[in-house]
Amino acid sequence: MEKTMKAAVLDAPFKLEVREVPVPKPGPDEALIKVHCIGICGSDVHYYEHGRIGRYEVKQPLILGHELAGVVVETGERVTNVRAGERVAVEPGVTCGKCAYCKSGRYNLCPEVAFMATPPVDGAWAEYVTVRSDFLFPLPAEMSFEEGALLEPLSVGFHAVKRGRIQPYDRVLVLGLGPIGLLALKAAKMFGASQVFGSDVVEFRRKLALDMGAREVFDPSAPGSLEERLAPLTGGEGFDLIIETSGNPGAIADTIRFAKRGGRIVLVGLPAKAAVPVDIGALIDAELDVCGVFRYANTYPAAIEILSRAKQDIRKIITHKFPLSDIKNAVELARTNKETSVKVMIYPGGELGEN
Amino acid sequence: MEKTMKAAVLDAPFKLEVREVPVPKPGPDEALIKVHCIGICGSDVHYYEHGRIGRYEVKQPLILGHELAGVVVETGERVTNVRAGERVAVEPGVTCGKCAYCKSGRYNLCPEVAFMATPPVDGAWAEYVTVRSDFLFPLPAEMSFEEGALLEPLSVGFHAVKRGRIQPYDRVLVLGLGPIGLLALKAAKMFGASQVFGSDVVEFRRKLALDMGAREVFDPSAPGSLEERLAPLTGGEGFDLIIETSGNPGAIADTIRFAKRGGRIVLVGLPAKAAVPVDIGALIDAELDVCGVFRYANTYPAAIEILSRAKQDIRKIITHKFPLSDIKNAVELARTNKETSVKVMIYPGGELGEN
Amino acid sequence: MEKTMKAAVLDAPFKLEVREVPVPKPGPDEALIKVHCIGICGSDVHYYEHGRIGRYEVKQPLILGHELAGVVVETGERVTNVRAGERVAVEPGVTCGKCAYCKSGRYNLCPEVAFMATPPVDGAWAEYVTVRSDFLFPLPAEMSFEEGALLEPLSVGFHAVKRGRIQPYDRVLVLGLGPIGLLALKAAKMFGASQVFGSDVVEFRRKLALDMGAREVFDPSAPGSLEERLAPLTGGEGFDLIIETSGNPGAIADTIRFAKRGGRIVLVGLPAKAAVPVDIGALIDAELDVCGVFRYANTYPAAIEILSRAKQDIRKIITHKFPLSDIKNAVELARTNKETSVKVMIYPGGELGEN
Amino acid sequence: MEKTMKAAVLDAPFKLEVREVPVPKPGPDEALIKVHCIGICGSDVHYYEHGRIGRYEVKQPLILGHELAGVVVETGERVTNVRAGERVAVEPGVTCGKCAYCKSGRYNLCPEVAFMATPPVDGAWAEYVTVRSDFLFPLPAEMSFEEGALLEPLSVGFHAVKRGRIQPYDRVLVLGLGPIGLLALKAAKMFGASQVFGSDVVEFRRKLALDMGAREVFDPSAPGSLEERLAPLTGGEGFDLIIETSGNPGAIADTIRFAKRGGRIVLVGLPAKAAVPVDIGALIDAELDVCGVFRYANTYPAAIEILSRAKQDIRKIITHKFPLSDIKNAVELARTNKETSVKVMIYPGGELGEN
Repeated sequence: MEKTMKAAVLDAPFKLEVREVPVPKPGPDEALIKVHCIGICGSDVHYYEHGRIGRYEVKQPLILGHELAGVVVETGERVTNVRAGERVAVEPGVTCGKCAYCKSGRYNLCPEVAFMATPPVDGAWAEYVTVRSDFLFPLPAEMSFEEGALLEPLSVGFHAVKRGRIQPYDRVLVLGLGPIGLLALKAAKMFGASQVFGSDVVEFRRKLALDMGAREVFDPSAPGSLEERLAPLTGGEGFDLIIETSGNPGAIADTIRFAKRGGRIVLVGLPAKAAVPVDIGALIDAELDVCGVFRYANTYPAAIEILSRAKQDIRKIITHKFPLSDIKNAVELARTNKETSVKVMIYPGGELGEN
Repeated sequence: MEKTMKAAVLDAPFKLEVREVPVPKPGPDEALIKVHCIGICGSDVHYYEHGRIGRYEVKQPLILGHELAGVVVETGERVTNVRAGERVAVEPGVTCGKCAYCKSGRYNLCPEVAFMATPPVDGAWAEYVTVRSDFLFPLPAEMSFEEGALLEPLSVGFHAVKRGRIQPYDRVLVLGLGPIGLLALKAAKMFGASQVFGSDVVEFRRKLALDMGAREVFDPSAPGSLEERLAPLTGGEGFDLIIETSGNPGAIADTIRFAKRGGRIVLVGLPAKAAVPVDIGALIDAELDVCGVFRYANTYPAAIEILSRAKQDIRKIITHKFPLSDIKNAVELARTNKETSVKVMIYPGGELGEN
Repeated sequence: MEKTMKAAVLDAPFKLEVREVPVPKPGPDEALIKVHCIGICGSDVHYYEHGRIGRYEVKQPLILGHELAGVVVETGERVTNVRAGERVAVEPGVTCGKCAYCKSGRYNLCPEVAFMATPPVDGAWAEYVTVRSDFLFPLPAEMSFEEGALLEPLSVGFHAVKRGRIQPYDRVLVLGLGPIGLLALKAAKMFGASQVFGSDVVEFRRKLALDMGAREVFDPSAPGSLEERLAPLTGGEGFDLIIETSGNPGAIADTIRFAKRGGRIVLVGLPAKAAVPVDIGALIDAELDVCGVFRYANTYPAAIEILSRAKQDIRKIITHKFPLSDIKNAVELARTNKETSVKVMIYPGGELGEN
Repeated sequence: MEKTMKAAVLDAPFKLEVREVPVPKPGPDEALIKVHCIGICGSDVHYYEHGRIGRYEVKQPLILGHELAGVVVETGERVTNVRAGERVAVEPGVTCGKCAYCKSGRYNLCPEVAFMATPPVDGAWAEYVTVRSDFLFPLPAEMSFEEGALLEPLSVGFHAVKRGRIQPYDRVLVLGLGPIGLLALKAAKMFGASQVFGSDVVEFRRKLALDMGAREVFDPSAPGSLEERLAPLTGGEGFDLIIETSGNPGAIADTIRFAKRGGRIVLVGLPAKAAVPVDIGALIDAELDVCGVFRYANTYPAAIEILSRAKQDIRKIITHKFPLSDIKNAVELARTNKETSVKVMIYPGGELGEN
C-alpha cells in the first residue's frame, strides 16, 4: 500500500491546504529526505498570493517551499555521496549537468533546471521530498538544520557578492534588508568586508542589520537626501560595491548615483514593473559594472566550509516558527507583516527546533 | 620674439576661427609635436554646436581636437622615450600617475586628468601641440600618420571589447556604426572574433561595416522586428557580447533583449537624456553584465603592436580630408552629413596624406 | 546474434592486433558512432611501446585512440541533442557532471572521468564506439571529419592559451612543434595573436609551423645561445606568453629565462623525469605565472564556432593516412619517424578522406 | 648651515655605524618625514651580512631600512595630499608612474623604481627621510605607528594572497612563519579565510602563528611524513592555496605535493640556490597555478582601510624594540636569533613606543 505524508498544496491563489499525498519514491540517483525545517521565501508568498511569477504560472496543484534541510531516509541504488541517517542541506535546483552553462560552471543558467516550487515542479512544504543526490550536502556537526535551510537564501547573497568581485577593503552598501539583503550583508562579512552599510524603510530590519554586523543603517524614507547622508561614509567618493535587493525602482536608480567611479553594482531584487528609468549617461561616465544575479551556483560547499568554522549568526533572521499544520497562518504572517517578520520557518516534523 | 602658429579656436558656438596663436613651449617632461593629421570627433562637433557637454562648458576660447599623430620637433630636458624627428601617435589624456586609479591601472578614471579639447584644456587643431612624453608612442614604419591618429577612436572600441571580456568564439553585435562603432567592430576582429554583426540606420555606414569585416548588417528602421531578424544569427540564443555605441535610448533598451543568458553588454554611446527605461527584471533574470566605458586605458601600445603586424583597414573610416584652413567646412560637414561622412581628417600642415 | 566489428586491440607492448570484437550497444544517454577517422596521439604510441603512462597501466587488452569524428548510427532513448545520420566530433573524456570540479566548470579535473584509451577505458581505433551524447558535437557542413577529429589535440592548445590569458597583442613563444605545439600555435592565432614564434629541433616541423602562421621559427640545437637569438623579437623584454609543449627539461627551465617580467608560462609537455631543476628565484623576481594544463574543458563548442567561420588550416598537421587494417604500420611510423610525420590519421571505414 | 641627523650607515659587511649625515631636503613633490619607527627586514640583515643580494651590491656607504612610519615635517611646493604634522605610513618603492607596468597597475615591476635600502638607494634607518608624497599614506587615529611600519611586510603577504586569488572558503597553508609568513597568515584572515594552517621548524614562531589565528601548526622537522600529517586537514584533497615564504628548496618542492588538484601556489621566499628541483609532471597533472610574488602594488590604502576598522593583531610579530643608537645589537639579534625574535623594531627618535 502506498505510503502517504502531509504536504501543503496550493490549489489556487490563497487556497493552501495541508493534505495527505503519496510519499515520493527516490529514483536511482536520488535520496528521500525527511524535511526537518523549511523556510518561507518571498517567491512562495508571491505564488500564494498571485498564482504566478512572470512567465511561471501555477496551473495545477503545487507544493511550494525550497529552503530546507533534513535527514536522509532512503537512497537510490546509484547514490554514494550520502547515506541514510545523514543530516543534509538541500540545494533545490536540479540541473542537467550537460548543457554549455552546466559544463562551464554557470549551472544556475541551465535551461533544463528543475527548481523546487517553480511551476510545475513541486517544492518541499511536506514531510518528505526526493532530491538528486548531487544536490545534497552533508551538514557538519557544528551546523544546525536551520543553518542548513538558510543556506538557500544565503546562497543568493553569497553569489551576489562574488558576482560583485567583493574585496575586504570595499565599502559596501546593501539596499533592502529583507532576508536576502541581510544574508548578502552576512556574505559580505564572510568575505572579510568590515564596512558594510544597509538601508531599509523598516526599523526592525535596520536594527537586525546592525545586530548582524552592519556598520551603520539608513532609512531611505527619512527626511533629507539619502545621498547626502551616505556621502560621509565614503568621503564623498561613493561605494565600491552596491547590492540592491529591494526591487524598488527608486533604489535601483539610486545605485548609479551612490557608486564610486569604477564601482560595481549587483542587482538582485526584481522590480514589479518592466521598465525602470536608469541614468545610463552616469553609468557610462563613471564606467560602472552592473551585474544581474539569478539564483546561484557552487555556493553550498563554500558556505558550509565557512559556516562550519566561523561563528556566524545567520539564524538571527529567523523571526517565527510554525508547524506544517499551521502553514496558512505562517504564510499570511510572512505576507502581511514585514514590520516584525523576516524569515518564517516551517517544521514539517512538528518539533520547532532551537536555533 | 615669440613664435606663432595657426590654430582653430572656438570662441562661442559656431564661432570657429583659424588664427595665429603662440607656439607652446614644452616643459621638462614634454615634447613639442608638429601635428600631421587630426580627426574630428563627435565631441568636437558637440562643443562647436552647443558650447558644452554635460558638466564641461566652453567658457573661454578653446582649441578643439584630440585624435592626432605627428612628428616630434623638440623635447624637454627629462624626456628620454622619444626624440626629435620621430613619428608619434598622441594619447590625448594626461593623467596624474599618482592617484589610486592611476596606480591600479584604471587611469582613465583619474580625477586629475587633463584631456585635450575638454574645457578648459586646449586640444590640437593646430600646427603644434605639447604633450607629456609618456603619452607619446612612436609609430613603427609600417604605420601611417592616419592610423596613428585613428588610434584614439580605436582605443574606445578596443577598451570596450576588453571591458566586455571578448572571446574569439563570441557572437558579437555592434549597435551604431559611426566611427566608434566601426572601430569597435575592428577591435572585435583584432581579438579574433569572426562573427561580428552591425546595426545602423544609415546605409552608407552599414556598407562600410560590411567592407570592414561585419558578417551581416541590419537597418533597425526597416520594417519588421529587429529582434526577429537577428534571432537566426544566434539560433535564438542571443548575442554573447553587445557593444552599444549609438546612444539611442531604444538601442540601449534593446541590448537587454538581444543578449544571451549570461551575456555581456558594453555601453559606450551617451544618450541625450538622463533617464533611459531599462528592463531590469530581464537583466536580472538573464544574469547579464552591463559595463560602462569611459575613454580607455593602456590601449596605445597594444593597438600599435597589433596594427604594425596585421593587415587591418581602420583607415577606411576616413571619408573626407581637409587642410586646417578649411576647418569650418570640415566641422560643418561632420555635423550635418552623417549619410556619407564617417571620419573627417584635418591636416594642419596642409598636405592631405595618402591613406 | 551479436554484431561484430574490427578493432585494434593492444594486448601487451608492441602486440597490437586488428580483430573482431562485439559492436558496443549504446546506453539510454549514449549514441553509437561509426568512426570516420581517428588520429594517433603520442599517448597511444606511449602505451603501445611501454604499456603504461605514469599510474595508468594496460593490464588487460585495450583499444587505443581518442581523437575522432564520425557519424551517429543509433541513439539511446534519452538522447535528444544528436540524431542518426548526423556528423559529429567526439570529446573523448566523459565526466560525472556532479562533482565540485564538474559543477564549477573545470570538468577536466573530474576524478570520475572515463577517458578513452586511458586504461581500463577502451578508445576508438575501431569501426564503432559508444559515447554519452553530451560529449558529441555536430559538425557544421563547413567542417570536415578530419577537422572534427583534430578538435581533440586542438583543444589542448586552445585550453593552454586560455589558461595563459592570451591577448592579441602578446608576443607568444611555443616551445615544441609537434601536433600539440602546432595546434597551440593555431589556437594563439585564433585568439588574434599575430606575433607567434616557435622552436623545435626538427626542420620539417619548423617549416610546417611557418606554413601554419608562425612569424619566425628557431632550432634550439643550432649553434649559439637561443636566448640571444630570441631577444631581438621582443626588444630584449621577453615573451608575454610561453607555451611549453616539448616536455624537455631544458626547455621547461628556459621558459623562466625567456619570459617577460610579469609574463605567463603554460606548461603542457610532460617531462620524462619527476624532478626538473627550475630557477625559482628568477620566477619570483619576475613575478611570473606558471600554469599547468591537464587536457581541456569547454573547448569543443568554442573551437567549432571559430573553425566553421574562419579559414584555418589545422589539417596541415596531418602528414599520413592509413586504413585501420594497417594500424600497426601507422603506429610504428608515428613512433619512429618524427622527422617527417606529425599527425597520422586512421580511417576505420577504409576510405582515406580528402583533407 | 646644513642640518644633520643621526643615521645608521653600512660601509661594508658587518660595518654598521650610527653617524651624523645631512638631513635630506624634500623636492617639490616630496615630504620630509621624521621617522618614528622602522623595522629590520631580512633583506637588511642580508645586506649587513653579505653586502649584496643577487644583482644588487652595496658599493658605497648605504643607509638600510624600509619598513617605516613617521610624521610629516615639511612638504615640497607641489604636495597636496599630506601636510606637516600628519602621521603617515611610507611605501618605500617610488616608481616612475609612466612605464607600461606603472600604467597597467603592476607598478611593482617598474624598471625605474627607486626602492629604499636597495643599493644604491638609501633607506631610512635615520631620524629623517624624504619620500615622494604619493607614497605617503595618512594613518587614521585608530592605527599606531607600529602598525604603519608593519604595513610594509604585511603588503607582501597581502599581495601574495591576492595573487593567489584567495577565497574565504579556501583551505590555506603557509610554509614558513617568519615575519612574511605570519603576516601572510593575517592577510589570509583579512580576506575571510578561516582555515589557515602554518608550518615552521621554530616552536616560538609556530606558537605565535596559533596566537595570530592559525587553526593548526606543524613542525616539518618532526618525525613522520608532513604530507601524511597534513592530509586529514583537507580530507586528503590537498590545499586550495599554499603560500611559500621560507625559501627552503624542500618546502618549495612540497608545495606541488600539498596542493589540491586545480589549486594555487604562491612563491614568496627566495631560495639561496638558483635551481630548485620541481615535479613538473605533477604540476601539469594537477593543473596547478604557480605565481611568483615580487614586492606588492596597491596594498597600502587597502590594508589601511581594513586595519582601521577591524581588530587585527599584526603587532604581535614585534618581539624586540631598540633605539637607533643600538642598531648594531638589534641587527645582530635579528641575524642570529630566529628562535625568539620575529620582527625587531628601531625607534630613531629614541622613545620605544607602546604597541
